[in-house]
Amino acid sequence: MRVTTIHAAGDIRLEERPQPTIDHPAQAIVKVTASCICGSDLWPYRGENPIDAGSPIGHEAVGVVEEVGADVRHFRPGDFVIVPFVHCDNTCPHCRAGITSACVHQGFTTGGQGEFITVHQADGSLVKTDGMPEAHQIPSLLTLSDVMATGWHAAVAAGVRPGSTAVVVGDGAVGLCGVLAAAELGAERVVAMSRHESRQKLAEKFGATHIVAERGEEGEQRILDLTDGIGADAVLECVGTGASMDTAFKIARPGSTVGFVGVPHGVELPIRRMFSKNVGLAGGMAPVRTYLPDLLDRVLTDRIDPGLVFDLTLPLDEVAEGYRAMDERRAIKVLLRP
Amino acid sequence: MRVTTIHAAGDIRLEERPQPTIDHPAQAIVKVTASCICGSDLWPYRGENPIDAGSPIGHEAVGVVEEVGADVRHFRPGDFVIVPFVHCDNTCPHCRAGITSACVHQGFTTGGQGEFITVHQADGSLVKTDGMPEAHQIPSLLTLSDVMATGWHAAVAAGVRPGSTAVVVGDGAVGLCGVLAAAELGAERVVAMSRHESRQKLAEKFGATHIVAERGEEGEQRILDLTDGIGADAVLECVGTGASMDTAFKIARPGSTVGFVGVPHGVELPIRRMFSKNVGLAGGMAPVRTYLPDLLDRVLTDRIDPGLVFDLTLPLDEVAEGYRAMDERRAIKVLLRP
Repeated sequence: MRVTTIHAAGDIRLEERPQPTIDHPAQAIVKVTASCICGSDLWPYRGENPIDAGSPIGHEAVGVVEEVGADVRHFRPGDFVIVPFVHCDNTCPHCRAGITSACVHQGFTTGGQGEFITVHQADGSLVKTDGMPEAHQIPSLLTLSDVMATGWHAAVAAGVRPGSTAVVVGDGAVGLCGVLAAAELGAERVVAMSRHESRQKLAEKFGATHIVAERGEEGEQRILDLTDGIGADAVLECVGTGASMDTAFKIARPGSTVGFVGVPHGVELPIRRMFSKNVGLAGGMAPVRTYLPDLLDRVLTDRIDPGLVFDLTLPLDEVAEGYRAMDERRAIKVLLRP
Repeated sequence: MRVTTIHAAGDIRLEERPQPTIDHPAQAIVKVTASCICGSDLWPYRGENPIDAGSPIGHEAVGVVEEVGADVRHFRPGDFVIVPFVHCDNTCPHCRAGITSACVHQGFTTGGQGEFITVHQADGSLVKTDGMPEAHQIPSLLTLSDVMATGWHAAVAAGVRPGSTAVVVGDGAVGLCGVLAAAELGAERVVAMSRHESRQKLAEKFGATHIVAERGEEGEQRILDLTDGIGADAVLECVGTGASMDTAFKIARPGSTVGFVGVPHGVELPIRRMFSKNVGLAGGMAPVRTYLPDLLDRVLTDRIDPGLVFDLTLPLDEVAEGYRAMDERRAIKVLLRP
């Protein structure tokens, strides 16, 4: 089968590899219908994470169950499933507490930008649709494997409440999904910090009531002005860099929480400010499986359309161009069709 | 009047200074009935904070209103009051949101280990008793100015819930008050990490169901063993050092929150672990005024007796010995009588 691999910074290849096989009775093999490129894939692509040369890449996918292990009870070949990027048994104490991303049987999707993937703990990890979804629903269903669930987690972790003012730092696909999540959770004012016109437009479509194009001190001042100097009730930090985290803590009102979901790179938390202002930090790797039933319902009832984050669709053969387009910010997020 | 001053590390003096006067119409002057030495006073005493030589020290006090400014409506000379270490107007947006420690008119008690103190924003900051309290209630009322409210804040920030397992890192007076708070908030298991027998005993009196005397990796393993490998539902970090924070994050279960109240010194937060395990951080400088009505009621109805943290009472003249006793951990907390 064909699968995307990374060999060095900037070196993405589509290669022929053996099709995965069941090697544990709780596993399933899923034939990928659609996958995509994640902002976190850009860290190794840009040489900012170590690379194991030739390793498969990609972790967001939806598809059709091809084969199941002997212990899998709830899925069978032909089922259309959403594959969370982090796999779980959904029965351990951490799963029962809602933190499925810290499952004691945690596993990850690897080689998601390919034709077939192995799902560990299939019964716990997967969620299926009733029958095959319509073609136009595929992009939104695909976002539930990671990006939309991650934006949702940022909003939940930040404690977005009805009537509140939420600010989203970061206009990548996760940030845009965070805007959608904050609006769905009832924020009265949703501020998207974005300086790219196409992203601003999508943020507004997702429910942003205000756009702040400025960054750094100027952007922070804009948020303070918007909130009469009080600061935001909830801040969604959707980037993961030191600068974005710094902004998040500066605009969060005393007693509020910064919800963070971007894999942290070079972040030093401002603990003195956190202490003096009582601004907390919550979030982390999204417990996708926990949110899936609710999010699936919102997508299938056309309440939300997070698939709009895909502004470029490419055949899997052109995956390298997909990385270039995202790296150069020509595309918000790239959908790949095997 | 006499007031305690610090001149250098280890150099505590009782000196004669002018009695404070009202210089703002919202102020009150309080004649101190009892004050005490805080764990945070030991940071400069040990030379770990910069010292402005000769500056007054101490910020925990109860006393009797001596004089009020022209704008003070709710207090008059003769009222017995608890003086929160952080003063507030109790009307600004931060105060209304419960974060009185971030009031836009924030002020602090200075020279609390003395005979008279100035209270800024007296109407917002102070809470009085009906008439003069009984002598045996003074120590517990004194703890409400900081230490008990701070332990309470740790428990609230950590999200202690009925039936949960709470672990308190730190057996100083704040940690012991955290034990009391966790028990009051309904934790089923309250684990005190303490290796000093006198403190263990007080922790048990305050509601600790388990004592863990080990520290570092050994102590962390004990907590994991106690919780079937899951970790604690809530962790109260009541020290503020890198080592204590490190332990707190290692024993907190995924999805839980570390409540921190110790002024951070040399703390680098483990953001990677926070991300992968979804362990949050909340807390900071305690909004004492917010908790005061509830805590005052618990003290006056003899439901709690946090004054037991004082195991040494000295006349103000012997304040230097009080610092030595706390520094050498001969005393848990020292009460001073002017």
